[in-house]
Amino acid sequence: MKIIRHSQHMQSAISALKFKGKSIGFVPTMGCLHAGHASLLKKCRKENDVSVLSIFVNPRQFSPQEDFKRYPRTFKKDENFAKKEKVDIIFHPSVDDMYPLGFLTSVEIRNLSEQLCGRFRPGHFQGVTTVVAKLLNIVSPHVLYLGQKDAQQAMVIQTMVKDLNFPTHVKVLPTIREHDGLALSSRNIYLSPEERVAARVLYQALLAAKNQIRNGEYKPHRIIQKMRSMILAKTSGPVDYIELVDASTLKKLKTLQGNVLIALAVWFGRARLIDNITIRI
Amino acid sequence: MKIIRHSQHMQSAISALKFKGKSIGFVPTMGCLHAGHASLLKKCRKENDVSVLSIFVNPRQFSPQEDFKRYPRTFKKDENFAKKEKVDIIFHPSVDDMYPLGFLTSVEIRNLSEQLCGRFRPGHFQGVTTVVAKLLNIVSPHVLYLGQKDAQQAMVIQTMVKDLNFPTHVKVLPTIREHDGLALSSRNIYLSPEERVAARVLYQALLAAKNQIRNGEYKPHRIIQKMRSMILAKTSGPVDYIELVDASTLKKLKTLQGNVLIALAVWFGRARLIDNITIRI
Repeated sequence: MKIIRHSQHMQSAISALKFKGKSIGFVPTMGCLHAGHASLLKKCRKENDVSVLSIFVNPRQFSPQEDFKRYPRTFKKDENFAKKEKVDIIFHPSVDDMYPLGFLTSVEIRNLSEQLCGRFRPGHFQGVTTVVAKLLNIVSPHVLYLGQKDAQQAMVIQTMVKDLNFPTHVKVLPTIREHDGLALSSRNIYLSPEERVAARVLYQALLAAKNQIRNGEYKPHRIIQKMRSMILAKTSGPVDYIELVDASTLKKLKTLQGNVLIALAVWFGRARLIDNITIRI
Repeated sequence: MKIIRHSQHMQSAISALKFKGKSIGFVPTMGCLHAGHASLLKKCRKENDVSVLSIFVNPRQFSPQEDFKRYPRTFKKDENFAKKEKVDIIFHPSVDDMYPLGFLTSVEIRNLSEQLCGRFRPGHFQGVTTVVAKLLNIVSPHVLYLGQKDAQQAMVIQTMVKDLNFPTHVKVLPTIREHDGLALSSRNIYLSPEERVAARVLYQALLAAKNQIRNGEYKPHRIIQKMRSMILAKTSGPVDYIELVDASTLKKLKTLQGNVLIALAVWFGRARLIDNITIRI
């Protein structure tokens, strides 16, 4: 397994691999790897000649008051994790390599970036799409693997890839959960033991919503009301949002129809957790 | 010479050529080709195995009140022109192919896009960078050729290519001029015979500015004053701008130093003409 720290070295390495006809699979991460990442890496390993993992805590997707500084950085552990998953190359650039002095460019996806998490994290998705555009040009993968846990992020990136004609196929893989249903996330390490137990209510609330819908409830506000009271019984929040939106446009639904994304973002102590499920009505 | 009209076909064709180890040179245009384009195409032909020309009048770089509808479209003529320049592939997509329903993405370059022409053409450079990002992903060239006549456009694109790590080398070639100094431009065809004669004052004013500087005049406002009076003796304008700016940041200079870009945009009848020269102080 190679570790490459400079974008130009990475581009040369990929160039040489492509010249040999190798297919490249790519999993971009911020490190602090967990079983969710493992599921992406396994698929990536299986479907491509060369499996590339990037580890880069991207400052541009954090607002000034967010957790950029305290975001967990566990490179040594991640390196061993990656070895076990038979990663071929870890790309681990510095902030200066990615954003040298005089950096002026941003990639924006209208509409999709302002909904859901975008309302609470202004500039977040612009930071995500800008760094992913860079990573796609550096790693030049045939296939990009993303997790459904970050549903909005996956949609925004898929839209960018299509709109800007990146010659990359995007695959979104299912959310990986703990035994009690909590979605895996690097931010789960912020949870106290009590908060960790309480946080399983998020998936329970999503499943309760699904049940309500299966039982004929099509009014979003009633479903949200029930979810909110389940969740607020377990945390003092705040609840950033609980929404039922169209799964393609992320627009709020007044009546449920088509593909519905039920998505939420809720605070447990200093951890802001997100989760979602999709239901076809 | 092949003509390809669909971005996916273009990507497949390029893929096949790269698999054979061919180097790709690329000249993006809006058609209505002239000797300025020819100089780019000749260099492109000389330096690469495969020479690709795109012809696409990009609606997103025109404001609603601008000349998108009447912009000259001369595809048959351009096709013959391209044959003479030994172009291998013309990429000539439709607006629907480039901007299908649901297109949401834009690429923006802060600071550089708001100066000079950006002040008079809001959204113009965002349209340029978005379409060039798409074209770079579709054509995937080793080298991209641009003209110095559109100095700000060249800078904005160079910045995007660097910031987003496009694996493409950008070359900016000198402005090609008529015998009387008028910079070649597709928009020159809007000029009446009288306006055509009058328009040579633009290059004369640039040369006069250069002379003033060589003679020790370092106050931009005095240089601009003289240029403006020369130009307004030949056209009723309006003069969108005459500016002396830092050639790297495009910021207005109060005292001349370093690399200075002298740039202007002036109307002659219904033609908005731009021109520029660079001087090292």
